[in-house]
Amino acid sequence: MSNNLLEEFKPLFYPRSIAFFGVSQRSNSAGNQFLRVFQIFGYDGKIYPVHPTANEICGLKAFPNVKAIPDTVDMAIISAPAHTVPQIISDCVEKGIPAAEIFSAGFREVGDAGRKLEEAIIKIAKGKIRIVGPNCFGVYSPKGGLTLLPGATYPKKSGNIGIISQSGGWVTDLIWSSDAFNIFFSKVVSYGNGIDVDEISLMEYFKYDSETDIIGAYLEGVKDGRLFIKIVRSLLGKKPVIIWKGGLSETGKRAVSSHTGSIAGNKEVWEAFFKQSGAVKVHDFEELLDTIAIFKYIPPANYRKLAIIGGGGVGVSASDICEKYGMKIPHATDSIQKEISEFLPQQGTSNKNPFDIGAPSAPSSILRNVLEIACKWDNIDAIIVNRMFFYGMKELMNEDVPEQNKRVDTIIEFKQRSNTKPVIVVLEDLAYGQNRIGIEISRRQVRDKLLHAGIYVVPSMLRAIRALSNLSSYWEKV
Amino acid sequence: MSNNLLEEFKPLFYPRSIAFFGVSQRSNSAGNQFLRVFQIFGYDGKIYPVHPTANEICGLKAFPNVKAIPDTVDMAIISAPAHTVPQIISDCVEKGIPAAEIFSAGFREVGDAGRKLEEAIIKIAKGKIRIVGPNCFGVYSPKGGLTLLPGATYPKKSGNIGIISQSGGWVTDLIWSSDAFNIFFSKVVSYGNGIDVDEISLMEYFKYDSETDIIGAYLEGVKDGRLFIKIVRSLLGKKPVIIWKGGLSETGKRAVSSHTGSIAGNKEVWEAFFKQSGAVKVHDFEELLDTIAIFKYIPPANYRKLAIIGGGGVGVSASDICEKYGMKIPHATDSIQKEISEFLPQQGTSNKNPFDIGAPSAPSSILRNVLEIACKWDNIDAIIVNRMFFYGMKELMNEDVPEQNKRVDTIIEFKQRSNTKPVIVVLEDLAYGQNRIGIEISRRQVRDKLLHAGIYVVPSMLRAIRALSNLSSYWEKV
Repeated sequence: MSNNLLEEFKPLFYPRSIAFFGVSQRSNSAGNQFLRVFQIFGYDGKIYPVHPTANEICGLKAFPNVKAIPDTVDMAIISAPAHTVPQIISDCVEKGIPAAEIFSAGFREVGDAGRKLEEAIIKIAKGKIRIVGPNCFGVYSPKGGLTLLPGATYPKKSGNIGIISQSGGWVTDLIWSSDAFNIFFSKVVSYGNGIDVDEISLMEYFKYDSETDIIGAYLEGVKDGRLFIKIVRSLLGKKPVIIWKGGLSETGKRAVSSHTGSIAGNKEVWEAFFKQSGAVKVHDFEELLDTIAIFKYIPPANYRKLAIIGGGGVGVSASDICEKYGMKIPHATDSIQKEISEFLPQQGTSNKNPFDIGAPSAPSSILRNVLEIACKWDNIDAIIVNRMFFYGMKELMNEDVPEQNKRVDTIIEFKQRSNTKPVIVVLEDLAYGQNRIGIEISRRQVRDKLLHAGIYVVPSMLRAIRALSNLSSYWEKV
Repeated sequence: MSNNLLEEFKPLFYPRSIAFFGVSQRSNSAGNQFLRVFQIFGYDGKIYPVHPTANEICGLKAFPNVKAIPDTVDMAIISAPAHTVPQIISDCVEKGIPAAEIFSAGFREVGDAGRKLEEAIIKIAKGKIRIVGPNCFGVYSPKGGLTLLPGATYPKKSGNIGIISQSGGWVTDLIWSSDAFNIFFSKVVSYGNGIDVDEISLMEYFKYDSETDIIGAYLEGVKDGRLFIKIVRSLLGKKPVIIWKGGLSETGKRAVSSHTGSIAGNKEVWEAFFKQSGAVKVHDFEELLDTIAIFKYIPPANYRKLAIIGGGGVGVSASDICEKYGMKIPHATDSIQKEISEFLPQQGTSNKNPFDIGAPSAPSSILRNVLEIACKWDNIDAIIVNRMFFYGMKELMNEDVPEQNKRVDTIIEFKQRSNTKPVIVVLEDLAYGQNRIGIEISRRQVRDKLLHAGIYVVPSMLRAIRALSNLSSYWEKV
């Protein structure tokens, strides 16, 4: 089955030619927007707009119907009204097109009439054409040149993260946010109502897809729970699966029904699913993003015992967060305290863990020494550094910018040495003013320098600790 | 007592002249940094550096001791080593200086020797000079021209929010972040170990301070719990008090002790405090910021029943969040569904609340109509709008920017009409790439336009709902 799927989904992810349905002579129709984002994104296969009367659409020769296209077509992208879709699928089957994505909505999520349209499509398609959607944003596959509707300027770079989602909105946010962690995707699939290609076949595909190592999902409902558990379970310890289940509340269930017409399922059932499958459970968009990313940056292990390097108030807050997420901040032993006291000024600091090293303007030499001590201390699994960068430091405190850069370099050098413990940097995003945009630019530069050195950077202590806790829980289960 | 405090604290918040201690001939000492941020910030009273041998410090005439200053001095700012501080305070008392802030650390937070220094200072100061600190970042009072150590470029504009904090770091973040909500402060006090001016006297001061209407606090410990409850309780319904208590966990308590030498207290005691005092309990920095701000933007009332206008996945997630925070998303009645269906295309939308109006590119006319219907629906208290702005829309989807601007204007016009319900805008911050900084600039422009029209704007649905829940809980207690 695995090899079959790899082969069967090939035209969905790497089509050499695409027919667009539902394009029109009004330039702003959804169909034309879809076609245009492909052109801007730079899809380099052939594009065939299908339109009953137009000669040209978006600068391309249009064809009155799919049969008139003098070429094999690998994929159909359909934005036509729901009631016309069964006929289009039928034409596609006749033409021998093996894959389609149906962007159009107006199916089971609107009630019985829509449900009947879905049934008609399934009947026509079965065994002949693989379908993503309807009521979806489609497929983003940078290697295949495919993008989602709002994704004209999405990254063209491919990565090792695969995404399965029943929400197009969350998927666009996820790709949009990839710069925050310098992460890239193998394939992202917004599959909406999922009448054919669904969470199960996609999970199975990603299982065997050599481009995908980490799998993230936003799910509203699962059709065959037992089969889904089985597939996700089979990935445990091989490819981490991180799932955000939307609609676990009562109101959420109702919203799910209006959104994708899915059966949201009960909290208890989903608790059991997470327990049995070993998937990582996340609760919101940020947690999904952070957790996917941390699997890319931090090697498999348990990281419950942390050294926190930063300021005083941050240390207090980090301690409270750790307790919530089952993490520990071991108290420094007397000998470690003594060792640190040899170079750390006594005033306004703490040598006990959380280490307050006089943030935000600690000398880089102190940071280096504390990193090294935390690294050799056997009761520590990972190190979180906070409040070492105060953008606009020169303007604010007359501190030399070089000293700030030195702190960044110190962390990178530490990371590059062999046998060091993982170090995570919390880089707050606080300069919100329009006149402070220069500080935001500096922040992004510092962040990217760290990310490119392989260091996980996240905008808050809570997000750092929560992600590390999720990572640890996963590897504890393996 | 109240009038006494207003008078007594005057030199702390509006000093006409300041003597700086602990300045040095090394330009980068903490004392000089402190002096320099005052100069850059634009303190317009007189500044007298005190130094045994220097003639000039930071371009100002220096005096060998405080007695040599040929002027009355309202305030002393002290960055000198801890062991020298008792003598400095003694000199200040002799000179008749009524207020001091002691930036220096190395007091009770480091152990017994430091505790003895504090006791010596208290003895000298009692009844003669009011002291903020030691081990603090000091006072930010824009009307008085005072700023904190890293605050050379803090806003010079004053507002109606007063802040009491045992962490200098969190306070600097808070002022730093004020642009995010266009909020401004009357006085912000980082009081560290609080040997004299403390949470109780500051709360009392803010109670009577006519410039302060909303009070936020980051606390690590409280010296006299019963008195503190009494003061906070007396503010209920008059000036909202929002408190983030750091160090409620076991590890957090230990961190508190290293940080400000405070007794963190037990969870149960603090639960009782929040119950009895009516203060709003918040759990982290973002929640503190969001909750302070929402009191400025949204009038007193209970807002448990929400209309959510946005996309499909966002609606599901908003529903789950609402359940967690005790908020409701009432299901639209048949007549409301019918009314909405008259102008909302059926496909890819929902007329049921959460309203999916085809975000992110809904026509502004649809947004206007749904706002109006939510407003007259008596089962709705407030409206949250999400995903109406996709910066870079033109580039991404070829949508006209004017349509995006129209959605912004629609919300502002709605807000400006009389008798409308509060509308909150969720404006995500997702364009993280260095090459997407232009999108971040647009986002800040849209945000500021909304904020200046009096609309509460927040970067995530979770933050919106949580803040509104905190606001509602508060007014339910009054």
